[in-house]
Amino acid sequence: MAEAYNYEFFNVSIPSEHVAHVEINRPEKLNAFKEVMWHNLSALFDKLSVDPNIRAVVLSGAGRAFTAGLDVQAASEGGTFAPPTVDGARKANELRRHILEFQDCITSLEKCEKPVICVLHGISFGLALDMSLSCDVRISTQDTKFSVKEVDIGLAADIGTLSRLPHAVGNMSWIKDVALSARVFGSDEALRVGLVSRVAADKSAAMKEALDLASLIASKSPVAVLGTKEILNYSRDKTVAEGLNYTAVWNAAMLQTEDVKEAMLSGMQKRAVKFAKL
Amino acid sequence: MAEAYNYEFFNVSIPSEHVAHVEINRPEKLNAFKEVMWHNLSALFDKLSVDPNIRAVVLSGAGRAFTAGLDVQAASEGGTFAPPTVDGARKANELRRHILEFQDCITSLEKCEKPVICVLHGISFGLALDMSLSCDVRISTQDTKFSVKEVDIGLAADIGTLSRLPHAVGNMSWIKDVALSARVFGSDEALRVGLVSRVAADKSAAMKEALDLASLIASKSPVAVLGTKEILNYSRDKTVAEGLNYTAVWNAAMLQTEDVKEAMLSGMQKRAVKFAKL
Amino acid sequence: MAEAYNYEFFNVSIPSEHVAHVEINRPEKLNAFKEVMWHNLSALFDKLSVDPNIRAVVLSGAGRAFTAGLDVQAASEGGTFAPPTVDGARKANELRRHILEFQDCITSLEKCEKPVICVLHGISFGLALDMSLSCDVRISTQDTKFSVKEVDIGLAADIGTLSRLPHAVGNMSWIKDVALSARVFGSDEALRVGLVSRVAADKSAAMKEALDLASLIASKSPVAVLGTKEILNYSRDKTVAEGLNYTAVWNAAMLQTEDVKEAMLSGMQKRAVKFAKL
Amino acid sequence: MAEAYNYEFFNVSIPSEHVAHVEINRPEKLNAFKEVMWHNLSALFDKLSVDPNIRAVVLSGAGRAFTAGLDVQAASEGGTFAPPTVDGARKANELRRHILEFQDCITSLEKCEKPVICVLHGISFGLALDMSLSCDVRISTQDTKFSVKEVDIGLAADIGTLSRLPHAVGNMSWIKDVALSARVFGSDEALRVGLVSRVAADKSAAMKEALDLASLIASKSPVAVLGTKEILNYSRDKTVAEGLNYTAVWNAAMLQTEDVKEAMLSGMQKRAVKFAKL
Amino acid sequence: MAEAYNYEFFNVSIPSEHVAHVEINRPEKLNAFKEVMWHNLSALFDKLSVDPNIRAVVLSGAGRAFTAGLDVQAASEGGTFAPPTVDGARKANELRRHILEFQDCITSLEKCEKPVICVLHGISFGLALDMSLSCDVRISTQDTKFSVKEVDIGLAADIGTLSRLPHAVGNMSWIKDVALSARVFGSDEALRVGLVSRVAADKSAAMKEALDLASLIASKSPVAVLGTKEILNYSRDKTVAEGLNYTAVWNAAMLQTEDVKEAMLSGMQKRAVKFAKL
Amino acid sequence: MAEAYNYEFFNVSIPSEHVAHVEINRPEKLNAFKEVMWHNLSALFDKLSVDPNIRAVVLSGAGRAFTAGLDVQAASEGGTFAPPTVDGARKANELRRHILEFQDCITSLEKCEKPVICVLHGISFGLALDMSLSCDVRISTQDTKFSVKEVDIGLAADIGTLSRLPHAVGNMSWIKDVALSARVFGSDEALRVGLVSRVAADKSAAMKEALDLASLIASKSPVAVLGTKEILNYSRDKTVAEGLNYTAVWNAAMLQTEDVKEAMLSGMQKRAVKFAKL
Repeated sequence: MAEAYNYEFFNVSIPSEHVAHVEINRPEKLNAFKEVMWHNLSALFDKLSVDPNIRAVVLSGAGRAFTAGLDVQAASEGGTFAPPTVDGARKANELRRHILEFQDCITSLEKCEKPVICVLHGISFGLALDMSLSCDVRISTQDTKFSVKEVDIGLAADIGTLSRLPHAVGNMSWIKDVALSARVFGSDEALRVGLVSRVAADKSAAMKEALDLASLIASKSPVAVLGTKEILNYSRDKTVAEGLNYTAVWNAAMLQTEDVKEAMLSGMQKRAVKFAKL
Repeated sequence: MAEAYNYEFFNVSIPSEHVAHVEINRPEKLNAFKEVMWHNLSALFDKLSVDPNIRAVVLSGAGRAFTAGLDVQAASEGGTFAPPTVDGARKANELRRHILEFQDCITSLEKCEKPVICVLHGISFGLALDMSLSCDVRISTQDTKFSVKEVDIGLAADIGTLSRLPHAVGNMSWIKDVALSARVFGSDEALRVGLVSRVAADKSAAMKEALDLASLIASKSPVAVLGTKEILNYSRDKTVAEGLNYTAVWNAAMLQTEDVKEAMLSGMQKRAVKFAKL
Repeated sequence: MAEAYNYEFFNVSIPSEHVAHVEINRPEKLNAFKEVMWHNLSALFDKLSVDPNIRAVVLSGAGRAFTAGLDVQAASEGGTFAPPTVDGARKANELRRHILEFQDCITSLEKCEKPVICVLHGISFGLALDMSLSCDVRISTQDTKFSVKEVDIGLAADIGTLSRLPHAVGNMSWIKDVALSARVFGSDEALRVGLVSRVAADKSAAMKEALDLASLIASKSPVAVLGTKEILNYSRDKTVAEGLNYTAVWNAAMLQTEDVKEAMLSGMQKRAVKFAKL
Repeated sequence: MAEAYNYEFFNVSIPSEHVAHVEINRPEKLNAFKEVMWHNLSALFDKLSVDPNIRAVVLSGAGRAFTAGLDVQAASEGGTFAPPTVDGARKANELRRHILEFQDCITSLEKCEKPVICVLHGISFGLALDMSLSCDVRISTQDTKFSVKEVDIGLAADIGTLSRLPHAVGNMSWIKDVALSARVFGSDEALRVGLVSRVAADKSAAMKEALDLASLIASKSPVAVLGTKEILNYSRDKTVAEGLNYTAVWNAAMLQTEDVKEAMLSGMQKRAVKFAKL
Repeated sequence: MAEAYNYEFFNVSIPSEHVAHVEINRPEKLNAFKEVMWHNLSALFDKLSVDPNIRAVVLSGAGRAFTAGLDVQAASEGGTFAPPTVDGARKANELRRHILEFQDCITSLEKCEKPVICVLHGISFGLALDMSLSCDVRISTQDTKFSVKEVDIGLAADIGTLSRLPHAVGNMSWIKDVALSARVFGSDEALRVGLVSRVAADKSAAMKEALDLASLIASKSPVAVLGTKEILNYSRDKTVAEGLNYTAVWNAAMLQTEDVKEAMLSGMQKRAVKFAKL
Repeated sequence: MAEAYNYEFFNVSIPSEHVAHVEINRPEKLNAFKEVMWHNLSALFDKLSVDPNIRAVVLSGAGRAFTAGLDVQAASEGGTFAPPTVDGARKANELRRHILEFQDCITSLEKCEKPVICVLHGISFGLALDMSLSCDVRISTQDTKFSVKEVDIGLAADIGTLSRLPHAVGNMSWIKDVALSARVFGSDEALRVGLVSRVAADKSAAMKEALDLASLIASKSPVAVLGTKEILNYSRDKTVAEGLNYTAVWNAAMLQTEDVKEAMLSGMQKRAVKFAKL
């Protein structure tokens, strides 16, 4: 089945039932992203989102880094940073289209109906944060080096880091400290402020934690898991009153599932349960 | 006075001046909630909200647990999870009404004009989080076992946990970690991520902290305390600019209080002050 | 150049290139604020905001305290807390105008186009929080004594603390704990909950950290720094989708800068770069 | 069945299948409202909302007027406008509770799951607008005299008119013209600006139009009608994107109805259809 | 060039410089929509959106109707209205995905960077409103028959009508009148309430008005036209303050255009001007 | 008293008690605006806003036009449309500051605590709409020529027209028709769509209507009038639920006025009443 997910620069495997592992695979360039890669990432997660065999996803990077971020050399050869050919307004519209398209690709991780657990190790700069902040759970390793790197190349991060950080981490002083300075920080700091929720000793330990968590989630009712992800994302952006009302409408349909009966019974009977596909 | 608060499954006492203590009292079932209980809870807090003798409230559970959550057996005997009698749409509207009504009951804790301090000890599953997240301050004990339990019974939590968590705790990775997996976690983790603001050694120490805090709050100007709770809840859901404007309109009336003069004078004179009822 | 910033009760200096240091200077009153001071603060930061020579600002207090907050004696002599001369409604409108004006002055810190790093030491009560929460980064010292002091003088904090805290710190239980009780807390607690992002041993160490951070930020592209501050503030108040769209429109203009080319080149060539004024 | 709806000052009848007619019945006082009346109105509509036999409601007034608004004499005898007993802040909280309670009663019309058609005739002042703006459809007569009367008694309308008008009528210049001046206007003007959607020659013609419309609505699928009212109210208050998403979640459940099949078949076969109760 | 726009069921032509005419072409079925058609519509407008040769678009229907709406027969043969195969929750998620996809296709009209003028004639039911409300300008003919038809087939309109109507027409009473009753209404009513802004005698007159307006718009600066559409759509959904701020950021880039100079000069010199492509 | 309002290009008079008349006075240039004028306008209305002698304001233009809009020649000589001196990003920030400043000046009309009635006559292009849409009531004359002129000079209107129109006029099709085409339209059309609420035969008749309306408003309780303006502006931008809550908090203070008693009594006694200053 994993063959359906053959995209250049990505390895996809099925390490356990209902769990997909997506590995960024351009290790010779520290998994730096060029344009084809974000399009592939998006296509891949749009498929996973509706694949009834998949219930949780782990995203990680091959080699020594999660990702060094944007492939600056490739970017500087493309037209993005070229001077305007007609005038500044026309250039601006071209850039706007380009940024919106890039953002949409990364937002595919957030829109994926299945939870995505991100393992960050080694160099995790720039786009590493844009991507991992679109994931649901972030796990890092003792050697992860994080940086909101964009001010170092003369721009404000525009693929999601600045929009998602204030809703992911409750420490605005720290967010501004690292985002304005581009300074490198480690997992201890990331754990303390809540950027990651777990730190593992090394990459293989982190992968084990991520895959175990993915397997645990995949063993639950997919109806319950989908609703939990959707309502948490909705509520993050809305007032409590709006969140409550949306939840009521959502569950008006989603409580009409066999899974509740199955789950209650299996709970009382202390047995495992197989939930139908979604 | 506490007799006015006689509701089945709840003990209410007045441990110190202006402080009410509400105890969930169904210890033989680990304080599991059936429908009459959330209606009683709501009625009780609606009264406390406007009782001029009460200025702060402590909520706790009798016995070995704060609450094990929904009484699943009672729920499975009710009609909630029964199949639709006519069609899925009609069942959905019945469920929607039911969920909205249940949510409204729990939201009474948040709407209560007086601050509510919640003491969580022992088993604190499912509804324990919905309820405590509607309270103002959360204190737990070394032995508290928390779980966002709902995915384990096949559904997304719909009585408030998922809508309030992203506005109460600034660590989305952790929120999703525990909400998608239903895993049990303890007070150390709850303190680290900010779900609780204090952890006491055991229940009696936690009760003492809660009651001391309640007494301290009850000694302040009730006008100042009401405004502080109201504006914090409003601001949580709004932009900073909206919060500031609302605060200005609120205080346009609320600064017209004798309490400011009283408080300033008593502060300079280092003497205690009795504020008028609100 | 610093002479242009001569305002009563404030010292302004230029400790390093592109960095301004603003010192609250009423040490004999623990830097307590009377009305002229918040007008001066605002005028001063409105100028810094558009001064092309300044790229980062440090705000601190002279003497033993950052600030003891509102000068209560001066306030009690003014008309703010006097009884209404005509009726409660007319008094209310007078108060509303006054509060909105005071809020606007403090919001000048947030609107300043340049990042503002706040050093809190010693007594940091009441207005100390309103002001520092309008700054971008908060650094404190081992001896800082914080208090959301307003309930102790009979009112809900109305110059920004209650509106900004829930968006700056991801721990609502703690926010309510300290805001409802006005209890004094220290830097350990402030660091744990994320109110400050760094704690230094003493004031001189804190000043060094602040000035180093300011210098680091001032060495970056001012276009990138401005965008990062603006987009983070915008995103704090909006949904993720709104944040992303705003970022795209913002960067459509702001990527048209020489700084990107300069920054990329200097990065590859490992050399320092001088960015043009903004 | 109509007996269940016996409330003082209101007549309820069932003029045709699934249609309720609620008549305000205090004609000797031009249907002026005193406190018991808005509580009765609310209780009555809360029942109609969930009564499976009712699918549409018409609201009108007995005698020569829809309503002259608040019973000013009764109000002036109550405590609402009495001077504060302690201080302005305490009085303010008492007023706030009172206004919120009054608003909630009137909002029952908007929250009623069944569409409410309002017939306005004769004097329709003050509360007449608060109430009719909470209804779904407004029909008036050639002799209706409207006025946003509140500024004439020294206050801004606070039971809903000012909050709902800008979302009901797309002519802000006219809204301010009538709301700031309290001038009386007639049905021609009301029709032109969209405050009412139909004007009938006289009251009996208006009642016939209202009852015919109610009967027509009552003949449709109650699932479709409920969703249409709910989604329109939701969308009025939200962005288009939010409206679309909410609609998708709503209809995910509500398309699972037999009514669609019934309606499609009956449409093709040109026959009437009886929809199941909701 | 029009060949690039060959999609089944749609004719595309270039009636004048920079103007595209898109004609729905399934006249034998009154232009009823089946699934392939909304996908084609979306693909077509996504292309027009970025085609530098196109500056305005007219949308109309071939034959006797704009569109009779959804092809109910085709829909009833598809799986949309089939009973759930597993349970109501799983069916609900399938429906949700389907509705969101359908909505996205129609929203392509709104997202098209170029203004879209819609000509409605003859039968214009159901989807006719969803589509035309996603367009910028609506023109109808004396014989247009409109209906928000969906309640007649047992469902609440879910492809945009209910979400967009309250933001397009300022007459909520009328909106609910027609949406709850599905009654047919004509152009006089549509013009009076503002659903359309122009009514022409017949289809050819309407097409002439639409094409003239499109040509006029196409003669203006494409930078100015793009900004005007974008800012109006943004402002429709936001507060005035948010709209103003967004406009300032938008025009910070978009004023950097040669078109302003060109337009000012040509205006003074009373000569026509050719604007560069966008 | 009117002397206090001596600003270049503006005449201010007091035509009746509590009413100010502000006349734009640059008739030889059809009242075209250059920069000093919008600064003066703002300063003037900021004063009127808090002048206790003024309770309503009329704004009109001297000579043959309300205003021809921006003084394009003056603007083209200023630096606004000059090419960037360093790069497009730096130019963008300069433009952003300039637009925000200009917007703030015009928003002074909306923020003025007293209602502002605008009389539009003759040429009313561009800025005429930005300004009049910031006023509360718009009255025009049979000969008024309106145009959202900005696309004709190559830019999207950025001083308020595009942000306020969708909240002032409930006819999006018409709004886009005139905003995208810059076509000139007259008072009949403006009245039909609700851009103005009254059309007078000529300027002197319009002035009489405006001054009569202003006098009528000025005779009401200033507490009631202030609240009505404020709550309508607030509610325009918010959900109904938010509007209701804000109203309750607002009136908690504002009902504590002598004006209610005065107004009720004078109403019963059919005598005029003098309200105290605000």
